[in-house]
Amino acid sequence: MAGRNHLFIPGPTNAPHEVLSAMHVAMEDHRSPIFPNLFKPILADLKKVFRTEAGQCFVFPATGTAGWEIALTNCLNPGDKVLIYRFGQFAHLWMEAARKLGFDVEMHEVEWGKGIPLDALEARLKDDKNHEIKAVLATHNETSTGVTSDIKGVRKAMDAANHPALLFVDGVSSIASIEFRLDDWGVDGAISGSQKGFMLPAGAAILAFSQKALAMIDSSSYPRSFFSLKDQMNANKDGYTPYTPSTPMLHGLRKALELLLEEGMDNVYARHHRLGEGVRRAVAAWGLSICAQPGFESDTVTAIVVPADKDARDVISTAFKKYNISLGAGLTEVAGKVFRIGHIGDMNDVSLLGAIAGVEMAMLDNGFNIKPGSGVAAAIEYYRSTAN
Amino acid sequence: MAGRNHLFIPGPTNAPHEVLSAMHVAMEDHRSPIFPNLFKPILADLKKVFRTEAGQCFVFPATGTAGWEIALTNCLNPGDKVLIYRFGQFAHLWMEAARKLGFDVEMHEVEWGKGIPLDALEARLKDDKNHEIKAVLATHNETSTGVTSDIKGVRKAMDAANHPALLFVDGVSSIASIEFRLDDWGVDGAISGSQKGFMLPAGAAILAFSQKALAMIDSSSYPRSFFSLKDQMNANKDGYTPYTPSTPMLHGLRKALELLLEEGMDNVYARHHRLGEGVRRAVAAWGLSICAQPGFESDTVTAIVVPADKDARDVISTAFKKYNISLGAGLTEVAGKVFRIGHIGDMNDVSLLGAIAGVEMAMLDNGFNIKPGSGVAAAIEYYRSTAN
Amino acid sequence: MAGRNHLFIPGPTNAPHEVLSAMHVAMEDHRSPIFPNLFKPILADLKKVFRTEAGQCFVFPATGTAGWEIALTNCLNPGDKVLIYRFGQFAHLWMEAARKLGFDVEMHEVEWGKGIPLDALEARLKDDKNHEIKAVLATHNETSTGVTSDIKGVRKAMDAANHPALLFVDGVSSIASIEFRLDDWGVDGAISGSQKGFMLPAGAAILAFSQKALAMIDSSSYPRSFFSLKDQMNANKDGYTPYTPSTPMLHGLRKALELLLEEGMDNVYARHHRLGEGVRRAVAAWGLSICAQPGFESDTVTAIVVPADKDARDVISTAFKKYNISLGAGLTEVAGKVFRIGHIGDMNDVSLLGAIAGVEMAMLDNGFNIKPGSGVAAAIEYYRSTAN
Amino acid sequence: MAGRNHLFIPGPTNAPHEVLSAMHVAMEDHRSPIFPNLFKPILADLKKVFRTEAGQCFVFPATGTAGWEIALTNCLNPGDKVLIYRFGQFAHLWMEAARKLGFDVEMHEVEWGKGIPLDALEARLKDDKNHEIKAVLATHNETSTGVTSDIKGVRKAMDAANHPALLFVDGVSSIASIEFRLDDWGVDGAISGSQKGFMLPAGAAILAFSQKALAMIDSSSYPRSFFSLKDQMNANKDGYTPYTPSTPMLHGLRKALELLLEEGMDNVYARHHRLGEGVRRAVAAWGLSICAQPGFESDTVTAIVVPADKDARDVISTAFKKYNISLGAGLTEVAGKVFRIGHIGDMNDVSLLGAIAGVEMAMLDNGFNIKPGSGVAAAIEYYRSTAN
Repeated sequence: MAGRNHLFIPGPTNAPHEVLSAMHVAMEDHRSPIFPNLFKPILADLKKVFRTEAGQCFVFPATGTAGWEIALTNCLNPGDKVLIYRFGQFAHLWMEAARKLGFDVEMHEVEWGKGIPLDALEARLKDDKNHEIKAVLATHNETSTGVTSDIKGVRKAMDAANHPALLFVDGVSSIASIEFRLDDWGVDGAISGSQKGFMLPAGAAILAFSQKALAMIDSSSYPRSFFSLKDQMNANKDGYTPYTPSTPMLHGLRKALELLLEEGMDNVYARHHRLGEGVRRAVAAWGLSICAQPGFESDTVTAIVVPADKDARDVISTAFKKYNISLGAGLTEVAGKVFRIGHIGDMNDVSLLGAIAGVEMAMLDNGFNIKPGSGVAAAIEYYRSTAN
Repeated sequence: MAGRNHLFIPGPTNAPHEVLSAMHVAMEDHRSPIFPNLFKPILADLKKVFRTEAGQCFVFPATGTAGWEIALTNCLNPGDKVLIYRFGQFAHLWMEAARKLGFDVEMHEVEWGKGIPLDALEARLKDDKNHEIKAVLATHNETSTGVTSDIKGVRKAMDAANHPALLFVDGVSSIASIEFRLDDWGVDGAISGSQKGFMLPAGAAILAFSQKALAMIDSSSYPRSFFSLKDQMNANKDGYTPYTPSTPMLHGLRKALELLLEEGMDNVYARHHRLGEGVRRAVAAWGLSICAQPGFESDTVTAIVVPADKDARDVISTAFKKYNISLGAGLTEVAGKVFRIGHIGDMNDVSLLGAIAGVEMAMLDNGFNIKPGSGVAAAIEYYRSTAN
Repeated sequence: MAGRNHLFIPGPTNAPHEVLSAMHVAMEDHRSPIFPNLFKPILADLKKVFRTEAGQCFVFPATGTAGWEIALTNCLNPGDKVLIYRFGQFAHLWMEAARKLGFDVEMHEVEWGKGIPLDALEARLKDDKNHEIKAVLATHNETSTGVTSDIKGVRKAMDAANHPALLFVDGVSSIASIEFRLDDWGVDGAISGSQKGFMLPAGAAILAFSQKALAMIDSSSYPRSFFSLKDQMNANKDGYTPYTPSTPMLHGLRKALELLLEEGMDNVYARHHRLGEGVRRAVAAWGLSICAQPGFESDTVTAIVVPADKDARDVISTAFKKYNISLGAGLTEVAGKVFRIGHIGDMNDVSLLGAIAGVEMAMLDNGFNIKPGSGVAAAIEYYRSTAN
Repeated sequence: MAGRNHLFIPGPTNAPHEVLSAMHVAMEDHRSPIFPNLFKPILADLKKVFRTEAGQCFVFPATGTAGWEIALTNCLNPGDKVLIYRFGQFAHLWMEAARKLGFDVEMHEVEWGKGIPLDALEARLKDDKNHEIKAVLATHNETSTGVTSDIKGVRKAMDAANHPALLFVDGVSSIASIEFRLDDWGVDGAISGSQKGFMLPAGAAILAFSQKALAMIDSSSYPRSFFSLKDQMNANKDGYTPYTPSTPMLHGLRKALELLLEEGMDNVYARHHRLGEGVRRAVAAWGLSICAQPGFESDTVTAIVVPADKDARDVISTAFKKYNISLGAGLTEVAGKVFRIGHIGDMNDVSLLGAIAGVEMAMLDNGFNIKPGSGVAAAIEYYRSTAN
């Protein structure tokens, strides 16, 4: 099929040419005296992305899914109670991981389309007089519904309840894209992956922990080996890793950090907001709604609800087979009900206008009652009026 | 500037990932016994792109501009008369090259927007009783105006005049993209470059000659060294080159030929026609006109005429600086009057819809009286209804 | 420092250009309908490398170190007794991993330089009347000492004892390089990593399990999530993965498998034997000895013992800083006593002759009493007489 | 064939990974407002490599062979007399080029193995009272014989004769590798190519001219178009090119210049001298001689003379087929009599020790009476004692 694939899934995102070229490098000795010259500045620069000075960053040769497990198994004890609100597939999977790993998961259902209910959270924590809840597991950006939760608000609720639980945040599809602040928001464990805002292939779990979280390690009896933060800390302090790292991934991360920090994190956030808002304007112009309810709109991914008589899978299939656009599918509870446009990573206005136009074609082909060009027109007007 | 550059100039075109990766290769010995295993099949497969069985193909480490010179200096004698119709900047430059090289250039002006006037050509050739004209220089696709000439018709006119002149064709922005047939159309020298339909970086002049043209070499006294077809033929027959080739370019060409031949040349032509027609529909929907007059529309590049009170350079500048789209400028006689969208090479519907949308933004920013989304809507309807 | 780094550590090994180029690819949707076209044949071809028809292969986005954990935590129960012989750093680390993960590790010390003592093993297993030992953890190729154990012999010993324990084999630095046969040798879990014989960067744990091992999963209560073989099996059967894979790594693995299978596994083994033997001839010519005792010599890495008055670290440091050669260091018990030459992966005679010559320089610089050129001469004579 | 090819031809040389990665880049608009940000600094930095402040540098999308033609056809008039000494294949080819291009070539034969005879040159120039000789064509480093001529001495001879001829130098295999100084040595035209000291693929002719040479352009009536220096100057002054450049080659050149200038040109020269001297020590240890006579030894390539009863082609063939080493062949007059080891470009001690060892194997296989390891031993001792 001629021409490039147009990738608008919410991850892996489009890796910039500079990043791919930086990864195209001969293998090297990860125990050489010069390896720390590569690795130490990466760990230092990651702190600027996680917005932490007090915390510590980690890179594991794994994925964001492993990141959930790393946070839980290093800082908690077997059977500890954790609190999680389920409002999408990735919150669900994190809950499942916690359960499989033997934690006592207290799950509260939230309507898909909303995020963490701050009042309910505060009430529940206040209720937990004995502080049995050891950690709150918060999905910052629920990729399956395009919903962003208010993590700053979560911290406020925890503080209002004067609750000592750790705050673990799944920032896989938020960190390095939309606003995230480890220190200011009092996050104890932040979990991300290489294939989203970091614009790399999958293959690195990228994490940050507060000193409070790291201090819990010693009192944790959870069995762990590959995922040991302690082993990483021991090796990282000299600029090394406890086992063989992917040096190409590190070179790619080096370059990605340069791109992010050169743009400036606040500009990165603003760019993602503009891009996301343009997509939302297009959806409104089509007369459709998005899965996220007001106040929960994600700036990295938009889940678009199809009319009741349509199957979103048809849109996705047409888009891929006929127009070489990759869209995100609705997962489990919203399968067939939504399709998703990822607007995260190395992306700009024209890329998204192509996506919007392509989605229009796929919807028209499937008998959607939309006006050709309407979504594009709305996005054009928004992008034009807000571009620098 | 975040996100990719959107490249819609009519060359260099977007090199596919497969081609760039094929070029990323260690240097190698171009005199090794295995080098011909790479080079010979390339020369053979090129014949399928030039649509020739009787002719012979060549690859020079140079550019299409050198191709003009190679054709002239190998097959003609110093001072020979050549006939050329000037209807754009590249016809002009070829004429200039011929003049600088000491040929007796007979140039006829044609309105920019039209192609070679077949009747006038036939009349002129009939008039040339003594066959002083040794070659007709025909620009197949005039990249500056988006005009395609009828080369089959040129051959018919020459035959009707029973004229023995050689027919040299500049196919830089047509070959490997729109229909071109060396044998069927009786072309004696066809000149292309790597950076257009071949989807490679610039750096290779890719040529094909008829046996009639090659037979003229021996009687030509034009001084030549680097550009000697004879030296190429002597080396090529064993699968080698007369001087050091760019082996990465050959590996890239190998891959590009695979992509082209796998798609099928007729499908490649049809794809370019669809893509071009969609752009033309968009232009019509904007209420603008294109430079090419009816019957001369190019399927690889469209030159769009801006209203008299506008400067096309402003559109191009806004597109590049504000939206990271690269468009083609109007050159010399049409500078400021047209901007160009290249739709050649590794391209598909969604890429072009992005381009059209981006151009709409740039036009609106410059006060054009167009309806946002109108061009996109027209292209959407056309692409939808014609896609496989 | 001009010129390339000469990488002779026992992993990461030198990734061939073809593999690196195959990895240089745009990101793609790992949930697309065409993703299985990439992944399924990889899983099938891996079986040819692990030499199994009955077993099943797995690729985790992790490293060989994780592979140890995957085998243990999927097929055993918490606290199960495992038997391991410690004769090098990687056997040691596997033991440590098993301990950290809460298994009841029975460790027997073996002199570093030897491999698994088959008689002792058989005796111990016979002694285990109640079959308390649930798994034998066998390091096939101990990378730290350059020692290869006889896994076929291990299986024989287990059979002789009629013991039902699982046989888990660390084949990180053997599989895809030296002879390994899952089915014939009755291996239940084989653990490898991408950065050795597979000639890729680190970042994939590549595993194979027997049906016997896989059948144990259901009765295992060990908590696991990211490392769940069941989740992999459920997703793999349709050609997908349970979480985001590194598609570049898969493309690289695709190419690496092509290279390996084109050469033929038996030829790969023979090549590694020749390369290793040449190095051993060089060491003998220097009048030095290797760490491996007779019968245990590894064909992927040679650990060379320095005279008592020398520090092997000086050789390594000189080699790296003065000559840009990366050698393997002696680890823990043999730190300073040995340096290691890796001869694994995409390697040939001339590469190794460069390594041998470079090592001669580094040894001479550090006052070793060797004759310049002597090691090279011995290797030359061997390679010459055994080359095809 | 497993393992990398070992490339020791005198060009194309081994392109560093950094250069290849820099070339792996999306196509871009060579007429964009930011293109000069890439190109202008390249032209400026090239002056540091050609060691000129007064001169001007050029990059043509062609090869060194074209460079010969560019110098001749821009600065001379048709039929002008040029003086050349023929002492190898590349001097021969330059002479042939000049003849084909219609110049009046005065050629003097020099024994292959020697360079330009300074006394004879001076005498001849003094004899040319009417200054009929318009240019001296000097091959700085004759790649076919491994002979370096004394260009500083050529300038002295010309000055001693008070002769106004232009001095054109073929520095294809010297510039960016061994000492070359355009200004100090009074060179008027220096011709190089991308695939030697510049460590790039073939595909760029890289040139420098003195103001004296450039001033001749206006009075030259030689017909030229693609090779016009004037067209380049007009475009280059604004940071552009007269026709489409290979932007990947420019990105590669950008990186190569960084590598060269970071090492420092004097260090580059010294490194090549060390590397070449090591090879010569090896040859002496073998009891063989080199083609270059004393005082003419090249630091970029060594041509080794085989005994009268041997055919050098057998060494080359064995080296390639059995050991995957690419050596340079003897050309025309020395075909079969010499083989060549290139030690130019991105090269270091260990690379060359591998080459020397490999050559020993190939010679031994062909019955040469040499002692295995003897050449390596001699080189080892030299490299060790001279390394930093």
